[in-house]
Amino acid sequence: MSNAVAPKGLEGIVATTSSICWIDGDAGVLSYRGIDIHDLADKSTFEETTYLLWNGKLPNQAQLSEFTANLAAAREMDPAIVKLLLEVPAYASPMEVLRTAVSLLSIYDADEKDCTHAANLRKAFRLTAQIPMIVAMFDRIRKGQPVIEADKSLSHAANFLWMLNGVKPSDTATRAFDIALILHADHELNASTFAARVIAATLSDMHSAITGAIGALKGPLHGGANEATMKLLYAIEKAGADPVEYVRGMFARKEKISGFGHRVYHTEDPRATHLRRMSEELGKAAGDTKWFDMSSKIEQFVKGEKKLNANVDFYSASTYTTLGIDIDLFTPIFAISRISGWAAHVIEQHDDNRLIRPRADYTGPAYPVTYVPIPER
Amino acid sequence: MSNAVAPKGLEGIVATTSSICWIDGDAGVLSYRGIDIHDLADKSTFEETTYLLWNGKLPNQAQLSEFTANLAAAREMDPAIVKLLLEVPAYASPMEVLRTAVSLLSIYDADEKDCTHAANLRKAFRLTAQIPMIVAMFDRIRKGQPVIEADKSLSHAANFLWMLNGVKPSDTATRAFDIALILHADHELNASTFAARVIAATLSDMHSAITGAIGALKGPLHGGANEATMKLLYAIEKAGADPVEYVRGMFARKEKISGFGHRVYHTEDPRATHLRRMSEELGKAAGDTKWFDMSSKIEQFVKGEKKLNANVDFYSASTYTTLGIDIDLFTPIFAISRISGWAAHVIEQHDDNRLIRPRADYTGPAYPVTYVPIPER
Repeated sequence: MSNAVAPKGLEGIVATTSSICWIDGDAGVLSYRGIDIHDLADKSTFEETTYLLWNGKLPNQAQLSEFTANLAAAREMDPAIVKLLLEVPAYASPMEVLRTAVSLLSIYDADEKDCTHAANLRKAFRLTAQIPMIVAMFDRIRKGQPVIEADKSLSHAANFLWMLNGVKPSDTATRAFDIALILHADHELNASTFAARVIAATLSDMHSAITGAIGALKGPLHGGANEATMKLLYAIEKAGADPVEYVRGMFARKEKISGFGHRVYHTEDPRATHLRRMSEELGKAAGDTKWFDMSSKIEQFVKGEKKLNANVDFYSASTYTTLGIDIDLFTPIFAISRISGWAAHVIEQHDDNRLIRPRADYTGPAYPVTYVPIPER
Repeated sequence: MSNAVAPKGLEGIVATTSSICWIDGDAGVLSYRGIDIHDLADKSTFEETTYLLWNGKLPNQAQLSEFTANLAAAREMDPAIVKLLLEVPAYASPMEVLRTAVSLLSIYDADEKDCTHAANLRKAFRLTAQIPMIVAMFDRIRKGQPVIEADKSLSHAANFLWMLNGVKPSDTATRAFDIALILHADHELNASTFAARVIAATLSDMHSAITGAIGALKGPLHGGANEATMKLLYAIEKAGADPVEYVRGMFARKEKISGFGHRVYHTEDPRATHLRRMSEELGKAAGDTKWFDMSSKIEQFVKGEKKLNANVDFYSASTYTTLGIDIDLFTPIFAISRISGWAAHVIEQHDDNRLIRPRADYTGPAYPVTYVPIPER
């Protein structure tokens, strides 16, 4: 066999072509369909950005209005999903509930096995509309609160906050959440997107791919990082400790710190720039910047000590907490955003497919090992 | 950026080391932990083979007895799973039901988030024991038949056939099914196993990885091939056609035929050897070799015409049909077997983990594309 041995974790290996997302890890550039993430964060909405990801270019006003209406119209949940959410125990983690509910959704999806471009787009609308509904509904159910009906007149971001909290969100909160959704919408072949493409490449259906992606995102090395960051901030507060001294102690004990460094970026993660600002602004608006202040001190210390930059996860922790969102909803919120990118990648994979099937370098007992009969073992 | 561009579908790229499975595609060799698949098919059982996959070597009698007892003891299904199976519509595909049920299982798994070797092994027992139960129970429920309780005194293969059919299986049927389970138990970095490892590599839990693997297996380019083969045999029978002329017509219309060729094998798939023999023997035992005869004629024609060898899927179609198994259970049966390999790979991934995160070669609009305000679009 003459197989090419790739670095562990396929680091630096180009696994596919893609026209969706371009990253320059050295320059700290992230772009969707060629448009800089800073432009999108400053000027776009999640609806417009999702249109861009799925269609390759920005919509005109008529296209955006139709797209927004279609996405809002897809806020219709099959009662079987609500029943599942009512039946699972309140202690279940929101990510395993989301994974299960999305898998169940396929049974009630008219296009289930159809992997054509048109059917995939229809499924993408439904999944993007319904994943936030699942997250919000389960959070209320587990807290013994009544489920809030979707409001089709609201934007995507506002409808989620409405269904989660049962109060119409402020413009500041809606815009902050909308920007967070834009920033997390896609990131090339991150692990969950790559999982989705590996699954889709067997010509399996979009629900299978997204269910797998949710499973990948659930891992602490992927979606779990901002959860770990927030747990650290809580631990520091509980201990009444100085943030820098606390982290210095962690380093002395060889403990790792979440929210710093990135496989792809070797400079500032461009998403961190926006989340840092939002964390500060939301704190000021709420009259309490303690999470931002603590984060900022840690960031400066880690940068000085370890030459590591804060990544997208570090300031999303304090941002979401200041928005009043529970810590175990951070990763589901990542999924609420990333579904737009996952769907774009599944569509792209199905449009020009080849099975993704690498090889392994065998390190086990040398073939042939004799099959020794059991009495002689 | 200086990324290495891999062939499409990562063909021939070594994505990881692994001590589980060694394949020589040119010589037609498949081995688990160095032991030839022919030895295992002739002499082993699914229980012993699973022990081998999970522990790296064959068990002695005491170890095998304990392992078998533990696997049988894990035939305990949480009532919430049975409830799901009772509630989903009968038209649901068994693979989407299995994917959803396995995802739901994690909520009731005491070790859910624990990715240690010991916890993973405990989960592997439960998943391997319960996946066949889910498949059998759903099949009976959708047909309006009563659910059959697991019989812990039966072997793994016999218990599945018992729970599926409600009659104790013959020794011939049990052994044939046991061999089919051995043959499908592992196959290095096939697409579903690779999906499982990509998911597990975020340090997500085994249920997430297996749920994703089931989603990948569901695709027609992976688990669906023997289903397509059987549909072809049925179509030929329905048309009253000559098998060779029928397939000749397909080739003239540029139609593809399932069950032939393989990404890895360039000679006979060693699993096909056993399934061909089983298809013939089971046909003779049942007094009707029509599916075997039809398959055999097609195999010889395709080999002569296209230089393509029958793969594992081609003769499993007639084998399973002769065992009285419904066509849409073929892929779930693949999962019943492959869970042993999937679990071995997830354990191996977690024991020495690195995030699997390749790159994409960007082919979209050149950065930076200007963000044009919406009135100007």
